[in-house]
Amino acid sequence: MFNGKKLSHLNEAGDANMVDVSAKTITARKAKASCKIFMNETAFDLVKENSSKKGDVLAVARIAGIMAAKKTSELIPLCHQLNLSKVEINFTVSDKDFSIIVMAVTSTKDRTGVEMEALVAASVASLTVYDMLKAVDKGIRITDMVLNFKDGGKSGTFARKKS
Amino acid sequence: MFNGKKLSHLNEAGDANMVDVSAKTITARKAKASCKIFMNETAFDLVKENSSKKGDVLAVARIAGIMAAKKTSELIPLCHQLNLSKVEINFTVSDKDFSIIVMAVTSTKDRTGVEMEALVAASVASLTVYDMLKAVDKGIRITDMVLNFKDGGKSGTFARKKS
Amino acid sequence: MFNGKKLSHLNEAGDANMVDVSAKTITARKAKASCKIFMNETAFDLVKENSSKKGDVLAVARIAGIMAAKKTSELIPLCHQLNLSKVEINFTVSDKDFSIIVMAVTSTKDRTGVEMEALVAASVASLTVYDMLKAVDKGIRITDMVLNFKDGGKSGTFARKKS
Amino acid sequence: MFNGKKLSHLNEAGDANMVDVSAKTITARKAKASCKIFMNETAFDLVKENSSKKGDVLAVARIAGIMAAKKTSELIPLCHQLNLSKVEINFTVSDKDFSIIVMAVTSTKDRTGVEMEALVAASVASLTVYDMLKAVDKGIRITDMVLNFKDGGKSGTFARKKS
Amino acid sequence: MFNGKKLSHLNEAGDANMVDVSAKTITARKAKASCKIFMNETAFDLVKENSSKKGDVLAVARIAGIMAAKKTSELIPLCHQLNLSKVEINFTVSDKDFSIIVMAVTSTKDRTGVEMEALVAASVASLTVYDMLKAVDKGIRITDMVLNFKDGGKSGTFARKKS
Amino acid sequence: MFNGKKLSHLNEAGDANMVDVSAKTITARKAKASCKIFMNETAFDLVKENSSKKGDVLAVARIAGIMAAKKTSELIPLCHQLNLSKVEINFTVSDKDFSIIVMAVTSTKDRTGVEMEALVAASVASLTVYDMLKAVDKGIRITDMVLNFKDGGKSGTFARKKS
Repeated sequence: MFNGKKLSHLNEAGDANMVDVSAKTITARKAKASCKIFMNETAFDLVKENSSKKGDVLAVARIAGIMAAKKTSELIPLCHQLNLSKVEINFTVSDKDFSIIVMAVTSTKDRTGVEMEALVAASVASLTVYDMLKAVDKGIRITDMVLNFKDGGKSGTFARKKS
Repeated sequence: MFNGKKLSHLNEAGDANMVDVSAKTITARKAKASCKIFMNETAFDLVKENSSKKGDVLAVARIAGIMAAKKTSELIPLCHQLNLSKVEINFTVSDKDFSIIVMAVTSTKDRTGVEMEALVAASVASLTVYDMLKAVDKGIRITDMVLNFKDGGKSGTFARKKS
Repeated sequence: MFNGKKLSHLNEAGDANMVDVSAKTITARKAKASCKIFMNETAFDLVKENSSKKGDVLAVARIAGIMAAKKTSELIPLCHQLNLSKVEINFTVSDKDFSIIVMAVTSTKDRTGVEMEALVAASVASLTVYDMLKAVDKGIRITDMVLNFKDGGKSGTFARKKS
Repeated sequence: MFNGKKLSHLNEAGDANMVDVSAKTITARKAKASCKIFMNETAFDLVKENSSKKGDVLAVARIAGIMAAKKTSELIPLCHQLNLSKVEINFTVSDKDFSIIVMAVTSTKDRTGVEMEALVAASVASLTVYDMLKAVDKGIRITDMVLNFKDGGKSGTFARKKS
Repeated sequence: MFNGKKLSHLNEAGDANMVDVSAKTITARKAKASCKIFMNETAFDLVKENSSKKGDVLAVARIAGIMAAKKTSELIPLCHQLNLSKVEINFTVSDKDFSIIVMAVTSTKDRTGVEMEALVAASVASLTVYDMLKAVDKGIRITDMVLNFKDGGKSGTFARKKS
Repeated sequence: MFNGKKLSHLNEAGDANMVDVSAKTITARKAKASCKIFMNETAFDLVKENSSKKGDVLAVARIAGIMAAKKTSELIPLCHQLNLSKVEINFTVSDKDFSIIVMAVTSTKDRTGVEMEALVAASVASLTVYDMLKAVDKGIRITDMVLNFKDGGKSGTFARKKS
């Protein structure tokens, strides 16, 4: 307990546990998370050239992100298991600053939210982009990994303010 | 092929595959990756207060990062399997800007590097911090996920320039 | 889109994603899949002799198939997660052509079907038979892996025509 | 024991176990496995049309097969763990009979062979093709799943006779 | 069938299968399982000293148990998949006999019970304690792993008699 | 640090980490672990009757234990990954006290020991026996889970004293 706030994964004894969600209502839940990948021009051009061919960097990253979203409760220790209704990952490629924005959207009908699933999807998709490009640019930087939006459940809607 | 550069995961036909590393030499390999987590003051104070008690947010995040490092080849599609010799995760907490720097160090003796393992460890540790604090701050931002250092193997040493 | 037909895993932008099933109805779903394994007489006799003893080839294959069915959404990238109500695997051993027919039956009550779960179960059960017999017959052939039947959901019943 | 032949996964008591390979020599090991997928013309045309675009059926299947190869020892109960040096999956599309041949190549330097890894890769790649096309053709048939070639280790080279 | 009793995982043919639970009712289900760990005084004092610091043995064991509970259907072959609503692990440390009692509580709303999940959680938490202390006491003994309580479902409530 | 003893998984800062084993020598390593399962007469008779038939409780438990041994580093947070050379599980059934002794033997050639792998194998095999018999005896008790023997590595041979 801190200023009336407490960590949601602690039980009454103060230990980290997977807290009881059985009393929560099954509702439609949705989340969006994103991050931005900055790379050098050579790496960026390879992504763009490659996207119109077989062996597409972004296609591999998309599959990696989707499969990772399904593993979220294996990765995040106190995260509840849930069966996702949808995972979608979109990339926005920007010539101006050699960047790629990764946006992941997840949804389910369950007792807990899908924020972590969206964040894991965006995160693993980005790391896969890094893996495929690291031979040409080890300095790639993944930044601004945030939750953009969530909806559903008792805590209602959250929408990140545009910066 | 692009300006003499090519993506390391493409075979001669241009398809994404897990390329042959059997001709590579077994050497000691090491990598460091880091990122920075920004949160609001309430969340930050909870981490600090909590770190001196049971249910430690950072202890859970550390375990999550270590376990995730061991899953790297399951998460990153074209990443080779390897048995890690070491995974260590350290946190630097800064009162000045309510931030936590996550630093992951990995090593092995094998035919491929451990960069992706360090990045996955830092990434999942950060997302676990997010998960444990999201009840008090959904706006937490994970930023500057980068490879800081790698050593070993044919491509030699990489050290990121301090910004 | 092709002649009014389209791939179910593509979103509107034409990218492969895990499409939204949240609007689908929860109904009882069932599927049957099968394949046939051909081997030489020595391998076949070992299976038969062994089936009346401990260390049963088919018992191990059955367990492998059941456990694999539960991993379907980890193996098939765009497959939705679901909790199976039942997995059953049966073997029909034929002296006439030294063959084993593997039949897998799966069911659930959920928003998506269990066809892939039945196919994965039959497939991994067959590969396990191969693994246990490969010391005596590397030429074993697994053939006619098909969906025999599915029921439940909007697309209704499918029953494969006997060939 | 049967006519001087025995199952390699049985111990002296006749129980199925993961037998000791520690006395075996570390050598380069390679395997090739393949299967053939038959589908109707509509499904076949979708694969071909789609292969020149984003959302490529075969690109997703290739990633699925590669990732599954790395899971072989989790799927096949008595299969030893090993770290693959390479996994490559190639598709041969035939207009004549609306078929796709899936060929998986695996290699390692270890004490056991990579036959099962090649078979699992080909099998899961094929099932992923099924998954992505089942909305337009539930009657797709995967056939002739075989080991084509193996090399390395005490049992030497195996090459399947062309039929 | 034996004296009117039969194994719940056998089908009519007598084969081990994952039996059909689709006709069962979704109800709240709960289980408690426990075991006791005996160690030498040196190991015991390390646990106690360490529990008031970072690197807490019991905190790591708790996370391990919780994560293992979520893997139950991957570990126990004929166990149905389910999404846990709660996992909680508590430790009772006794100076009298240098022992730690591990108690795991699990719950869900589903068609099958969570007994195996509680047993797996207690078991893996205990083994993690062993792992962290084995450098100082290889003779640690884990004993009296039992189901203490279950509730919900057709078979109703079970409460173990205190010994 | 405690009386000159310290926990092997803590780094210099006192945090739990996966410690560096890269300087250790690759040697043959072996371990044996066991436990004892007590059940009522009905359950015991079912195991015995069933062992001479298809659907064998102990055959399923053996496979479960072997597969779990391969997952050890996924279950025990600070355990290093290694590729097992052998896993063998044996059962000793005793009519005198309706008990089953589970003995797991593991080996590898690597830089770390296989004690945890043997303990995990014995543990999951026992829990699988529980799972298959819980319909007839919920009071089954798993006891005396211990390391019986280990060999190889710097710390040399450990052999548990018979009690």
